[in-house]
Amino acid sequence: MSVPEQVLDDIRAAVGPKGWTADPDAVAPHLAERRGLWRGECAMVVNPATTDEVARVVGICNQAGVAVVPQGGNTGLVGGGVPQGGVVLSMKRLNRVRDVDPVNFTLTAEAGCVLADVQRAADAAERLFPLSLGAEGSCQIGGNLSTNAGGVQVLRYGNARELVLGLEVVLPDGRVWDGLRGLRKDNTGYHLKHLFIGAEGTLGVITAAVLKLFPRPTWRETAMAALPSAEAALKLFERAQNEAADGLTAFEFLSRRCMEIATAHVPGVADPFKSPHPYYALMELSGFGGADGRRQLRRTAEAILAAALDQGAVEDAVIAESAAQAKALWRIREAVPEGQPALGASIKHDVAVPVSMVPEFLARASAAVESAITGVRVVAFGHLGDGNLHFNLSQPAGADEKAFMAERERINRLVHDIVAGMNGSFSAEHGIGLLKRDELTRYKPAAEVALMRTLKNALDPKNIMNPGKVL
Amino acid sequence: MSVPEQVLDDIRAAVGPKGWTADPDAVAPHLAERRGLWRGECAMVVNPATTDEVARVVGICNQAGVAVVPQGGNTGLVGGGVPQGGVVLSMKRLNRVRDVDPVNFTLTAEAGCVLADVQRAADAAERLFPLSLGAEGSCQIGGNLSTNAGGVQVLRYGNARELVLGLEVVLPDGRVWDGLRGLRKDNTGYHLKHLFIGAEGTLGVITAAVLKLFPRPTWRETAMAALPSAEAALKLFERAQNEAADGLTAFEFLSRRCMEIATAHVPGVADPFKSPHPYYALMELSGFGGADGRRQLRRTAEAILAAALDQGAVEDAVIAESAAQAKALWRIREAVPEGQPALGASIKHDVAVPVSMVPEFLARASAAVESAITGVRVVAFGHLGDGNLHFNLSQPAGADEKAFMAERERINRLVHDIVAGMNGSFSAEHGIGLLKRDELTRYKPAAEVALMRTLKNALDPKNIMNPGKVL
Repeated sequence: MSVPEQVLDDIRAAVGPKGWTADPDAVAPHLAERRGLWRGECAMVVNPATTDEVARVVGICNQAGVAVVPQGGNTGLVGGGVPQGGVVLSMKRLNRVRDVDPVNFTLTAEAGCVLADVQRAADAAERLFPLSLGAEGSCQIGGNLSTNAGGVQVLRYGNARELVLGLEVVLPDGRVWDGLRGLRKDNTGYHLKHLFIGAEGTLGVITAAVLKLFPRPTWRETAMAALPSAEAALKLFERAQNEAADGLTAFEFLSRRCMEIATAHVPGVADPFKSPHPYYALMELSGFGGADGRRQLRRTAEAILAAALDQGAVEDAVIAESAAQAKALWRIREAVPEGQPALGASIKHDVAVPVSMVPEFLARASAAVESAITGVRVVAFGHLGDGNLHFNLSQPAGADEKAFMAERERINRLVHDIVAGMNGSFSAEHGIGLLKRDELTRYKPAAEVALMRTLKNALDPKNIMNPGKVL
Repeated sequence: MSVPEQVLDDIRAAVGPKGWTADPDAVAPHLAERRGLWRGECAMVVNPATTDEVARVVGICNQAGVAVVPQGGNTGLVGGGVPQGGVVLSMKRLNRVRDVDPVNFTLTAEAGCVLADVQRAADAAERLFPLSLGAEGSCQIGGNLSTNAGGVQVLRYGNARELVLGLEVVLPDGRVWDGLRGLRKDNTGYHLKHLFIGAEGTLGVITAAVLKLFPRPTWRETAMAALPSAEAALKLFERAQNEAADGLTAFEFLSRRCMEIATAHVPGVADPFKSPHPYYALMELSGFGGADGRRQLRRTAEAILAAALDQGAVEDAVIAESAAQAKALWRIREAVPEGQPALGASIKHDVAVPVSMVPEFLARASAAVESAITGVRVVAFGHLGDGNLHFNLSQPAGADEKAFMAERERINRLVHDIVAGMNGSFSAEHGIGLLKRDELTRYKPAAEVALMRTLKNALDPKNIMNPGKVL
């Protein structure tokens, strides 16, 4: 579908010469998708500098029925930012931190702010903005909110959704909704912000947000525990929650195969234990206050591990004695996805189940895929504290890559059916985009899909906002 | 508007003889409203025992275009549960705790569970369900969620909205949406639960919820600080946030007049300080772990107060040495609204502003109302940590009650205009119902009201769900 020249002219007039590009070299990165699963196309990339310009562009497109595809850092994993015609709305020039209020613990940022810049602005005000994920140096806060990003501190601080107090949104008809309120309590009507957060740009364009800030922890304790079983990981997690409560800021989980992948295929990664163990937990506690607070945090970490050792839930444990040792323990966890390609092709799943069902999920899903493909290697790790597992499968050693990948649909079905039976999620962090649309209609209750369509039709009757994504 | 007899027959058949009543004595409490501002009317009170029965009743009413007014404990303060025709849907028989999962930190409760029973069920599993408010012995969890209740622990645990992982809802057309997922991460489409939470029953009927549980704190420290100014309260709050972080579970605020009301008019309430002070803060810290944790919590409380004393932000302070002393300090705060009627008629406001603007709000709003009505007595107290103040005004001593109350509209306008100028909320906790509908259209941006109407029309085109409330 080509875009009428008059519409492009109107957009150019609305945003001025700096506000758009059709230069193929400049446009190319906006058509690309991280894993190369899709190649996009668009008539033009628009770079508005203000909310008002966004509103004018969206209004013009709505009049003409032209698709608008909002893009932040274009770091998504499900094709949610891939344009299939229409115009790309790049938010990168809308990148001011409008306000920091340390006493209200809030920061107001425009959608195009890079996540790391938001973190830095909070830090400069002696506050913490806790959203943190691999792409933080290039992803933008508008994209983080539109996809309800997760990351490594969800256990303590929640998903991106939980970090938002107010929003400014350009609606599909070009009106601006100014909901930039920095309030902890406000019961004046429907809470519209949650409609746009996580909607992947299909209901409007988030242009700015009032974000929650937190006190900056002064102390950290990082420990790794070697575990006899997945059930033991749960026991340790429950103990850590009860003893440390909010002090527990991360609880990651990996299998023996993950440890082997990290140490064998990523330089500089070492197993901190003398002998192998079936599973490992990486635990981080955060604390506040002066030297007293530091001692107390250490005692809490030791008490949790000592009690779990006595109970048999932990076989061995190390507590980092320095920042360098803490980093080395985190490095093991990070090295798992980096090292996995050394095992050949892989089929990946980003699933969540109730935390209490993680061991059962692991047992059942592993048995199912191992009986479906002889020699398949389960690489399971992730955010146990959130019930969120990356259940990745590496091809059998020496097998044909293509033949293995041809099993993807069948394997997805096996894994996601088990997840669905546990009332779990087939996309815990990554969203729907183009990649998981069919899974959505397959696994969601019909009433839920119908309700989503009702909302989409009501808010965007011409279907111009990121069409073809999610629904 | 009378309800056709055939519709009532169909409803009776759907719920059976125990599932409805038209006996005037049994119906009367459902028509009453706490403050006597409205008197309701309805054709019948329906008491369904299952979600399926709720669905059948709503489906019948939708077919016939008959209004459905859901009611929990009927403890609301804005007339949200007052029927104006149609049928009342009482949730009291839908009162099972369906599941408690201590490892997943979740509890699944039906809408008609009394809040105190939910708290008890969590406690029996050695977990905390933190929602706590004055009416907890009679209000129901379904009503708490439909109104997004606040209470005294919002600072640490959030509003009712933040305590929900999943919902089951009967939609206006009688379909059931089963969104009872107990997941911490789930990015599979629009997050519908937030549409129904806080919608005051105008978009559907919440029939059950998966609620978040938390570790139970083992230690508490309660302190009261005497302050030279409202600005000093902010300084103390900021220091407490930075030192105690999540350990700070309450930070309440009251003026000298509040202390005088509590001690003069409520038996057994005593001022803990030797001399009068302009303001007071009531601070509660919660901690975990063994005896070490207890000592550390006490040291944190002492360090916060000592530093604030040095800084001049605190004039005097007491820390409770026993549970009885802690209770006596809380009693002062609770006694303020109890004692206020002794001063005669009052005009009340439930407002929120950014925490950093509380002192400015207090100064400006007090000046405005004192110049509008000579001798009016400002009684300001509330949840400073949430920016939520109960800005109540008692009549001038000896003035005529009726003449004072006739100024209500003019005074509301003065106060709410100042709140609006600070991007605040004219209803922080209590909602809209019938009482604040006009304020909603006055103060909300037009785009927001239009969006709310779009949603209402899309989900409930026949306007049968609690019609006339909110919008």
